[in-house]
Amino acid sequence: MAVARTPDRAVLPSRPVTPRGHNGGMGRVTDRRSVMRLDVSTGASQTIVMDTLVGEEPLEIRVGRSGGPKAPLAVTMRTPGDDIDLALGFLLTEGIIGAPEDVVTAQLCAGTDEPNTYNVVDVTLAAHVPAPATDPSRAFYTTSSCGVCGKASIEAVRTTSRFAVAADAVSVAASTLSELPGRLRHVQKAFDRTGGLHAAGLFTAAGDLVCVREDVGRHNAVDKVVGWALRDGRLPLAGHVLLVSGRASFELVQKSSMAGVPVLAAVSAPSTLAVDLAADAGLTLVGFLRGATMNVYAGAGRVVA
Amino acid sequence: MAVARTPDRAVLPSRPVTPRGHNGGMGRVTDRRSVMRLDVSTGASQTIVMDTLVGEEPLEIRVGRSGGPKAPLAVTMRTPGDDIDLALGFLLTEGIIGAPEDVVTAQLCAGTDEPNTYNVVDVTLAAHVPAPATDPSRAFYTTSSCGVCGKASIEAVRTTSRFAVAADAVSVAASTLSELPGRLRHVQKAFDRTGGLHAAGLFTAAGDLVCVREDVGRHNAVDKVVGWALRDGRLPLAGHVLLVSGRASFELVQKSSMAGVPVLAAVSAPSTLAVDLAADAGLTLVGFLRGATMNVYAGAGRVVA
Repeated sequence: MAVARTPDRAVLPSRPVTPRGHNGGMGRVTDRRSVMRLDVSTGASQTIVMDTLVGEEPLEIRVGRSGGPKAPLAVTMRTPGDDIDLALGFLLTEGIIGAPEDVVTAQLCAGTDEPNTYNVVDVTLAAHVPAPATDPSRAFYTTSSCGVCGKASIEAVRTTSRFAVAADAVSVAASTLSELPGRLRHVQKAFDRTGGLHAAGLFTAAGDLVCVREDVGRHNAVDKVVGWALRDGRLPLAGHVLLVSGRASFELVQKSSMAGVPVLAAVSAPSTLAVDLAADAGLTLVGFLRGATMNVYAGAGRVVA
Repeated sequence: MAVARTPDRAVLPSRPVTPRGHNGGMGRVTDRRSVMRLDVSTGASQTIVMDTLVGEEPLEIRVGRSGGPKAPLAVTMRTPGDDIDLALGFLLTEGIIGAPEDVVTAQLCAGTDEPNTYNVVDVTLAAHVPAPATDPSRAFYTTSSCGVCGKASIEAVRTTSRFAVAADAVSVAASTLSELPGRLRHVQKAFDRTGGLHAAGLFTAAGDLVCVREDVGRHNAVDKVVGWALRDGRLPLAGHVLLVSGRASFELVQKSSMAGVPVLAAVSAPSTLAVDLAADAGLTLVGFLRGATMNVYAGAGRVVA
């Protein structure tokens, strides 16, 4: 797989495994805005200050074949940077691609009649990859009648994931898990000046940080981690722990399952469907990972005291 | 507009304005799961307890004409309950409908060949309503080249919103704003036993709570409020304040603008594009509304000391 970036279309090396920012050289990860700060405890005193905000821009993901036109597949609101990883991770966690050889090229679109906004990624799929559904929201659901439900959603993920997460025999010490939020926060502090970023951190079972990405959207942060891992030849992510800030939804368990991650941990609460999918897929789901305590909602056998 | 629910298709009255839960009689707002709780500070002691989790299920929104077939438009992962309001609010904030008379019926689909999962809402559009784009993610973006960007997104919202938010002359006291998070939390406590719910609360400029909805997805909570307001004949929501738990994204400002809400307040940080859209649309955007302090990122003229 060649990953190219306009205008020079140079092949990008795989990104370093050490955590870093998301900028990618485009300077839109954060931006500053003038803000009026009020304090009602002091008679609603008003001061004008500059505030640093997290960047948010639409990213359009387009797919097609070599030499052919590219068709829009999805638009996601994301924090700019690591956009090719985001597109690749999205395609993988949606079940459209499964390995680096499924992609011929992935590049930021050069545009034709206006300045490049760097908000479009064009992915050329290999000839052997089936064409994706034009509406990705349909990919996981059958719609012939009222059959859309949690059970059907779980079944769709099970039949789509290429990796045998349930067979992953890794075990993780509870004491190791309890240290991960602190390690993630330590890295976040380096570049989250906005209070508006979600983080996803990939760790080894021994607790070593492998990759961290932040984004205004939690699902985007996970897709960026997965896309990086795909490009670095690390899929499936057997033996790894994925830690997300905030809550664990069905979608995040789905993405973990699709990437072969056996242990998903969240700082806050999971949903019912997240727990049910984790149990069905043989994935360990840890929630409320805070301080010395945690709740294990599924796959408790991998967590050792 | 008649709003019907299978199997009896009775016309539902508009929902009461006093805050209440999301159940709608289906008992899936929350559910209990067995969980292993570990505490590493006490030698990784393990206890099995029952935990209450927020319900998450897919909802498919289908649209069509009287007597014709319904085509799937979107699937959203949501907390069950208030599903018709969610569907109507989604259609309104996506610009597909603008008034109660644009909808002939909205009902939970009865299904044909299997038990009803109550996860499909069928909306019959009036004959005068233009057919929506089959892929709603496309509705706000032009895709002829690399033109997708924040500026184009803002322009798309401006040309789509039916209500003149910028002309809304309402003013809100800073001291009133500072009391809203407490009022929202007070109502949330009554039915958030999960730690996993987002809330959206609609208030008058005097700080009176009009409607509150909770959902696993913040955008769904807002759509449920907007759908209720549409059904109750309250649109545009001139003179109101919408408070959301957590962060303010572009999408939430977009939904506020589409519903005619002049003041959007968030407990946490906004993004750059949220601020830029608010400024462009003439909407007041308040962030970090905590304790006695707040930041006003756009439309500060409506906030009076």
